[in-house]
Amino acid sequence: MSADSDYAELVEELLAGKHRALARTITKIENRAPGYRDLVSQLHQHTGDADVIGITGSPGAGKSTLVDKMANYYRERGETVGVIAVDPSSPFTGGAVLGDRIRMASNVGDMDVFFRSMSARGTLGGLSTATTDAVKALDAFGKDKIIIETVGAGQNEIDIVKSADTVAVLVPPGSGDDVQMLKAGILEIADVFVVNKADLDGADRTVQELREMVHMQQDNTANLATGHHGAGATGGRGADEESDADADDEDETESWEPTIVETVAKDGEGVEELVGTLADHADYLDASGLLEEKARMRYAEEIRNLLRDDVGTLLESEIERQDGIEAFAQQVLDRETDPYSVADEIIEPLEDCLEE
Amino acid sequence: MSADSDYAELVEELLAGKHRALARTITKIENRAPGYRDLVSQLHQHTGDADVIGITGSPGAGKSTLVDKMANYYRERGETVGVIAVDPSSPFTGGAVLGDRIRMASNVGDMDVFFRSMSARGTLGGLSTATTDAVKALDAFGKDKIIIETVGAGQNEIDIVKSADTVAVLVPPGSGDDVQMLKAGILEIADVFVVNKADLDGADRTVQELREMVHMQQDNTANLATGHHGAGATGGRGADEESDADADDEDETESWEPTIVETVAKDGEGVEELVGTLADHADYLDASGLLEEKARMRYAEEIRNLLRDDVGTLLESEIERQDGIEAFAQQVLDRETDPYSVADEIIEPLEDCLEE
Repeated sequence: MSADSDYAELVEELLAGKHRALARTITKIENRAPGYRDLVSQLHQHTGDADVIGITGSPGAGKSTLVDKMANYYRERGETVGVIAVDPSSPFTGGAVLGDRIRMASNVGDMDVFFRSMSARGTLGGLSTATTDAVKALDAFGKDKIIIETVGAGQNEIDIVKSADTVAVLVPPGSGDDVQMLKAGILEIADVFVVNKADLDGADRTVQELREMVHMQQDNTANLATGHHGAGATGGRGADEESDADADDEDETESWEPTIVETVAKDGEGVEELVGTLADHADYLDASGLLEEKARMRYAEEIRNLLRDDVGTLLESEIERQDGIEAFAQQVLDRETDPYSVADEIIEPLEDCLEE
Repeated sequence: MSADSDYAELVEELLAGKHRALARTITKIENRAPGYRDLVSQLHQHTGDADVIGITGSPGAGKSTLVDKMANYYRERGETVGVIAVDPSSPFTGGAVLGDRIRMASNVGDMDVFFRSMSARGTLGGLSTATTDAVKALDAFGKDKIIIETVGAGQNEIDIVKSADTVAVLVPPGSGDDVQMLKAGILEIADVFVVNKADLDGADRTVQELREMVHMQQDNTANLATGHHGAGATGGRGADEESDADADDEDETESWEPTIVETVAKDGEGVEELVGTLADHADYLDASGLLEEKARMRYAEEIRNLLRDDVGTLLESEIERQDGIEAFAQQVLDRETDPYSVADEIIEPLEDCLEE
């Protein structure tokens, strides 16, 4: 009860634009504090106005620097920014990782850029849910742009960055092998490829390789859609964007071809172009109806994840309420029963109950 | 009904030692044929007599050749053998992968060695469950030795090979990097390391590196247990088994130090020693009570996995019975509700029902 009324005040303060309330809310989300579900439920109705951008890429690609420059750029345009930096591989949380960056922001007395880091505690499913919930807090608060920055580019990071409307993947230059590696999972989620450190040797080649990869992917998709194979799928006819646009202009309004942007984050070079491309993608999502479609799919996934966690907890307590898992395992060991029979025994009351 | 009575006959024939019934049973397990749960339930009470051995290791380490030689060795001693070769990365199933090996076995007119391959269909959790169930079929049939051979050495393979009582990890010689890689996950499950192709250059070094790794691990474990750190944990004092045995003879009956065996599978060299070591480990498990303890933990895990799958199916059908996931997602999108509230709404009837 008292937790609920506290949270009503907390939500009120958050909605009124108090950064301390925002920070406290995210801490409660991270810690799964009692009543945090109600807290997030209350926030949900105030969400839906922010542009949510995901940034991922291998370590050393320059994500932090780029995100800082982007945040500065948005801020200078008068927009407010929230950044959630997620590191699934680290057991640490809170200010440690981003200590310097938080200080940087507050030194200039500018809290329109709100930084927060989140790290693995408990399951990764939990971290993914916590990220989604933290984005809701920033959205309800009224941040115009929310950036989810993930450290690394593995499957875990892909799952997390899926909370974003628009996903940018950073690729370091001269990483021919990395471009090949990207094919597994990353290509499907990238709306924008960023070749950062574009002043380094090998950047042109990386851009070229990415371009070929994107076109091959687009051709494959088009062939799958129209049912013809082979011709044009080799990418060997000097694949540039214009020729493709002529080739299948019917689909043009319906599909987004991942854009490749070159940046030198440390000097701020290319940041304006990147921000423009991200805005183009947001416009495209809006105009095509995909923004809503993606949100709908995300909510379905959120519901499924929550149900899976909840029912797992429910089953564990039901097993405890009965003899406990050890006792069941002992009965199976003694050949008094078997795993399928035990599962049936526990599940059947639930089935019966739902059928009523 | 008719499926059940069919299965009663199938189980009878399997228990009577008919290999065709065994093959049909495993096919039903693999296909999740209607009633397969009852089938496995009926088999369970006839299990528990086989030695179950898991063999894993990186591709090219020579697993298949070694397993064939082991199977021959057991057979020559008059023991019966079942081999399940699992490839989680392949979508193909059945005879394809092991066609040659099945033929080899039947050519010599000897069905005491029963080969079967299983591959990924549906989820990996499914494959792991299917492997466990297939092992039960072989065990109930009366095979003395059951070998689970997994292709590869990733996390998926580790999960599968955990169905075994004794796990052997193959390491190719001259793979200094591989030994480093092994530290993630493999070291914890290996009861025996097999340096196969021991006639190749670099085998001695690989054996030495493995020995150091094993001793460091043992020292760490011992230090954790006794609470003292540092001294002796560097492995720099000529780590050989005898000196360690003197150092902490109190624990000697309680712990198993992973053994390192050298083989040249293609010539059958070292197979006798390996088989002896595996038998030593089986004896150790039996004498220490760990055999039962491991089985109990495995059954607990089996029950949990089945419950998770079953309840997932139950929830999906419950969501469908209500408005369907799409409708829920639309309501969340329209801010009429939110994911946590939807989850609560679906879970609460289940909770209420269990509390009654």
